[in-house]
Amino acid sequence: MRKQGEQLEIGFHHLEEEGKRFVSRLKDKKPLFALVLGNTETGKIPGVSAAGAVPEITDFTPAADAELLFYGRCKCIDGVPVTPDGIPTPALITMSALQLTSASALVVEGGLRVKPKVPYFSLGGQPGGDIRTGRSVTEAKEVLEEGILLGRTLAGLADYLVVGESIAGGTTTALGVLTAMGVNGMVSSSMPHNPMPLKKGIVTEGMKRAGIAFGSLKDDPVRAVEALGDPMMPAFAGIALGAAREIPVLMAGGTQMTAVLSIVASLDDSVTDNLAIGTTRWIVEDQSSDIRGTVEQIAQVPILHTKLSFADSRFEGLRVYEKGIVKEGVGAGGAAILASLKGYSNASLLKRIEENYSKLVGR
Amino acid sequence: MRKQGEQLEIGFHHLEEEGKRFVSRLKDKKPLFALVLGNTETGKIPGVSAAGAVPEITDFTPAADAELLFYGRCKCIDGVPVTPDGIPTPALITMSALQLTSASALVVEGGLRVKPKVPYFSLGGQPGGDIRTGRSVTEAKEVLEEGILLGRTLAGLADYLVVGESIAGGTTTALGVLTAMGVNGMVSSSMPHNPMPLKKGIVTEGMKRAGIAFGSLKDDPVRAVEALGDPMMPAFAGIALGAAREIPVLMAGGTQMTAVLSIVASLDDSVTDNLAIGTTRWIVEDQSSDIRGTVEQIAQVPILHTKLSFADSRFEGLRVYEKGIVKEGVGAGGAAILASLKGYSNASLLKRIEENYSKLVGR
Repeated sequence: MRKQGEQLEIGFHHLEEEGKRFVSRLKDKKPLFALVLGNTETGKIPGVSAAGAVPEITDFTPAADAELLFYGRCKCIDGVPVTPDGIPTPALITMSALQLTSASALVVEGGLRVKPKVPYFSLGGQPGGDIRTGRSVTEAKEVLEEGILLGRTLAGLADYLVVGESIAGGTTTALGVLTAMGVNGMVSSSMPHNPMPLKKGIVTEGMKRAGIAFGSLKDDPVRAVEALGDPMMPAFAGIALGAAREIPVLMAGGTQMTAVLSIVASLDDSVTDNLAIGTTRWIVEDQSSDIRGTVEQIAQVPILHTKLSFADSRFEGLRVYEKGIVKEGVGAGGAAILASLKGYSNASLLKRIEENYSKLVGR
Repeated sequence: MRKQGEQLEIGFHHLEEEGKRFVSRLKDKKPLFALVLGNTETGKIPGVSAAGAVPEITDFTPAADAELLFYGRCKCIDGVPVTPDGIPTPALITMSALQLTSASALVVEGGLRVKPKVPYFSLGGQPGGDIRTGRSVTEAKEVLEEGILLGRTLAGLADYLVVGESIAGGTTTALGVLTAMGVNGMVSSSMPHNPMPLKKGIVTEGMKRAGIAFGSLKDDPVRAVEALGDPMMPAFAGIALGAAREIPVLMAGGTQMTAVLSIVASLDDSVTDNLAIGTTRWIVEDQSSDIRGTVEQIAQVPILHTKLSFADSRFEGLRVYEKGIVKEGVGAGGAAILASLKGYSNASLLKRIEENYSKLVGR
């Protein structure tokens, strides 16, 4: 069940040398998993997000994901969050990895309409608006600063951090912040067909309303978040920045992580040596997005991915992940990497995921 | 500067053998300090609390105390919290001990009107009412349960916990819960003359209103908190209970800790081996209260105290602590014990306290 050294089922999608060095520093060390939550009105624009059966329910998805990690079941909704097609949340992967490894986990609220029924850190943030208005996030600076403090505190409690997110519509706000900061963001989607024209239209509308041009906020990430971002971003960026001054931080997510990285690197590029992005195979193999091409424009940060595959799962609801539905979220890729670093095989992780799937989705 | 073994400046006020064993388990281990905050209307009853220059400002005291620990200054008020006589908050002791030792600290909200501008854990609690109504705390059960989860999480992040509190009027609500649970509570006061008749009158009024007799809630601590307690209690008790199932927990505070202990011991008396109360010399030497006599009625839990003295301080505002003003709060005694366990002498702690006093109170 336990694998050593070269046998870790982790792939290196970008900057392989740096990635391997990063991984070698985490091996047999004590992790702490943090999940950053947020709600926005952007996520409710029809066609933007698959993080809920219908747009309105996306307000519940982050809280439900957090409850799943703590209790093994959701409290604020029945069942588990699903896509409009009934595909279950990637939190199933994260909860399974955390169960296997007994890693500690904390929840952080960036700004929520629906609060989880678990202990959570508040940084004083508010839910986000609709970026088409050009005014999305309030108090981004304050949340960022408290996030830095929290990151510094968490750095004293573990050897490395794995930070994930749950927010609907997150790739659209990521595209917004990247564009404002002068990065050609080639972001992914939780849907099998990436609605890029829709996302670009939303971002363009918000930029026009806020009087922002491509790259005009290159050196003002806080303003970029306020106008076109989401409330997960300042919390996540603050934690990553505050912690990475002292310990390695695995930023666990898909192309949304490039927006967070852009914020962090703009504020303090001395910490990027302590950063890596950890994601899924479904993200790095996605033809409709380009996480590597986006990161390359920002900073020298390696991209790791779990080799976890659902191709041989006995459940159709998991096998469809291989078709590019969902892909990532709730730090699923990073949590799977954490399990690898702790010596668990992907086969044992898949077994646990299937047990949880069977219990929770009941098929 | 560093002291070994017998030289630790820690006193044993109750169950010396057990206390020494407890201390030996913490020596050279990794601590985590948690501060639990709450507001109540009880604390605003004239004459009940000295945790603010005037009753109304006690709403700000817990948030200001938390900010002091994180930033070395308050954000939500100018200066630092003081008593009506201008004596500064015991958070000065706590912040100095945390600075000296670089121990990690977390803030937990039990239920607040004024939130601190620091990252804090929410457990879903609400501010408390006036116990004279016999209805003081809502959702005590939910907060307790989330507290247990949080305690379990924190147990994975450190070798032992030191948990303190900041809430005005806390000894009056402590007397309420103790009385409802059948303990003859001989509680202390932040004022030089303990207004016991006032406190007893308040508790009696609340008990009458709630239909509670002495000891009638012996086995129902949640109900006792709901009727006569404060929102710090279920959060603190939950954390202590959840953590003490795995690691030692030093309950840092004065006679309020006896009420928390009564709640914890009633819910799960198997954890008391992992508990001790850590307080100040000013509490154990107080003639108007009896922490030992109160604990003896509840459980076999040792009482430790720091030998820290302000008798020789160059500041009048500190020397008056020796007259029994303030006495304890914000986990001051436990934080000083933490500094001793980390090898710092009380002389070095006093030096740091005086530096901070000089900077913050400016005399």
